[in-house]
Amino acid sequence: MTLDELPTPCLVLDLGVLKRNLAAMQAAVARHPSLVLRPHLKTAKSRDVARLASPDFGPVTVSTLAEARYFAEGGWRDQIYAVGITPQKLDAVAAIDAEVKLITDDLDVARAIAAHSAPLHALIEVDVGEGRGGIPPDSPLLGEIAAVLGTRLAGVLSHSGHSYNGRSTEDMAEVAEAERAGITAAAARLRASGHAVPIVSLGSSPTALHARRMDGVTEVRAGVYMFGDLFQAQLGTHGIEDIAVTVLASVIGRSPVRNTLLLDSGALALSKDRSTQAAPKDWGFGRVLDAAGVPLPGEAFIARAYQEHGEVQAAAPLPMLPIGARLRVAPNHTCLTAAAHDRYHVVDGGAEVIAVWDRVNGW
Amino acid sequence: MTLDELPTPCLVLDLGVLKRNLAAMQAAVARHPSLVLRPHLKTAKSRDVARLASPDFGPVTVSTLAEARYFAEGGWRDQIYAVGITPQKLDAVAAIDAEVKLITDDLDVARAIAAHSAPLHALIEVDVGEGRGGIPPDSPLLGEIAAVLGTRLAGVLSHSGHSYNGRSTEDMAEVAEAERAGITAAAARLRASGHAVPIVSLGSSPTALHARRMDGVTEVRAGVYMFGDLFQAQLGTHGIEDIAVTVLASVIGRSPVRNTLLLDSGALALSKDRSTQAAPKDWGFGRVLDAAGVPLPGEAFIARAYQEHGEVQAAAPLPMLPIGARLRVAPNHTCLTAAAHDRYHVVDGGAEVIAVWDRVNGW
Repeated sequence: MTLDELPTPCLVLDLGVLKRNLAAMQAAVARHPSLVLRPHLKTAKSRDVARLASPDFGPVTVSTLAEARYFAEGGWRDQIYAVGITPQKLDAVAAIDAEVKLITDDLDVARAIAAHSAPLHALIEVDVGEGRGGIPPDSPLLGEIAAVLGTRLAGVLSHSGHSYNGRSTEDMAEVAEAERAGITAAAARLRASGHAVPIVSLGSSPTALHARRMDGVTEVRAGVYMFGDLFQAQLGTHGIEDIAVTVLASVIGRSPVRNTLLLDSGALALSKDRSTQAAPKDWGFGRVLDAAGVPLPGEAFIARAYQEHGEVQAAAPLPMLPIGARLRVAPNHTCLTAAAHDRYHVVDGGAEVIAVWDRVNGW
Repeated sequence: MTLDELPTPCLVLDLGVLKRNLAAMQAAVARHPSLVLRPHLKTAKSRDVARLASPDFGPVTVSTLAEARYFAEGGWRDQIYAVGITPQKLDAVAAIDAEVKLITDDLDVARAIAAHSAPLHALIEVDVGEGRGGIPPDSPLLGEIAAVLGTRLAGVLSHSGHSYNGRSTEDMAEVAEAERAGITAAAARLRASGHAVPIVSLGSSPTALHARRMDGVTEVRAGVYMFGDLFQAQLGTHGIEDIAVTVLASVIGRSPVRNTLLLDSGALALSKDRSTQAAPKDWGFGRVLDAAGVPLPGEAFIARAYQEHGEVQAAAPLPMLPIGARLRVAPNHTCLTAAAHDRYHVVDGGAEVIAVWDRVNGW
């Protein structure tokens, strides 16, 4: 089967680009002696992708319990569920056939973890500047939670999502160093109080790639680097040609007067993520490419997204393609766009679909 | 089972509110003699909801071929697939065990429909001011497409999505009248050329509710009225208390210093739709309610949406609830939020889950 025969809209994954992105991250991590990459599978949500990103069933990160179960069944037994846990979810975690390490920044939750009949383990979530979850490295709570967890303390964990505010590799390196300093300070404080802190985990794709030092850090988490997107390309995580995932769409309308094309990929197929709105180049709801992946003229982009319609606009005359012609849309934010689909149609540079890979959506 | 026992995030549908919204639309349509309501099932994507909205298996509208198949299997045999068709999709349409009427604004597509071995029928899409798909009522193409379709012409169809730019019932009534005038002019032109035009179809929830006249129109399509949302409430489609669908979430973090709560419902559970950004009251990524559906103080809303985290902010001190406490989030755009979930947990005013209804997502 070829891309021309697939029903649209659907998701296309280019295997060659994926492998190149995986190799780039592996090389970046290998710069730091004894640093372990713990791929975040929230972007791919696919065992087939995980087999490439973590071929030896090494440590992985998940963002939902549905992912935890799915990857446990696939053989990945060393997981961190990197979203703050609630006491109500502990039984569901305990039922998973894997070591699903939890994260918390709360004393009551730590008590529930410590008291649970299953041998659950947790990392303390540390805020290194993002201001989302976690406690500051110098908070008295750090030691209190560690004391409650006791031997169930698995380590400390931070996330540097605020690296997304940066715009250069220099910015990324600075955020990475601030994160490293924060998380290793937290680990040092705990160790000084007599706690074992086996895991010191930090991450985000840009900081993983651009960090200058990783001493004191045991592992790095990153996910979006596998596929890339229009936003990450502008952060310097990868080049514009390194976006592995696109949405295949059909032309369903055209207006020479307005210089627009209408595609059958709208808000549900693309997501309504507008992250490039804050980037140097705003791509609307996605950049429009031809069926072979070559950009349409005039920086063509999806300017308006209705539930099932996407309107293409451009700064140059658009080709008035026949209804049914195929185009592809590169996503602003690949995690969200991929989550709108239940499978990948895998190609390797050409139009032949060499595999269909499933995804685990939902919770 | 009660809402307290459900894994979060998940989708909650209040049956009483749904029935009230359905009755309001039925009453609005009944003002116009012989006008038929053809509910659009793109919002609900559920046979259980369709049984209430179209109990006699009457005419319905769908937005994907997945919906067309699913509702055909459920017994709804009179469908309009209200997204411009491509020649490549005709075989898939023909394979569905229902009369799935198509729409087109293209001469080549009309030829493909007319030449297809299955007895396919199509409506001509007419642009009444939205500027998305369709041809103007006075375009010469109208007669040319009708001539090509011949006896396969099922009628004319328009969509008044630009009613969403209005902000008062007066605005809606004006858009409705412009739509009515445009679509009936198109029908009159075709009839004057000797074509039968059995269906004259228009729609959008706000115009269906607020239109003053419907003479010359045979049917009205509307979908989002069933559930409502924060955007439609501000258009006057319904009251703020008439939103039938909410996302049930758990508190996973809290910061008294920043006056924030962190929920386990982020961009994937809520969607990144920001439609209220253009409305008088911007609700961020959703309005935050307590477990019983009562708004939190200070117009609490989801200010930041990460993949799995939603950060609540408010103009008054937020209750620093324990981790695991339940809240609910009312959506900006219910079509997109509901599409992030594969089922509804149905309640009827209280906390008891009286049913679980499935949805048909994807394409």
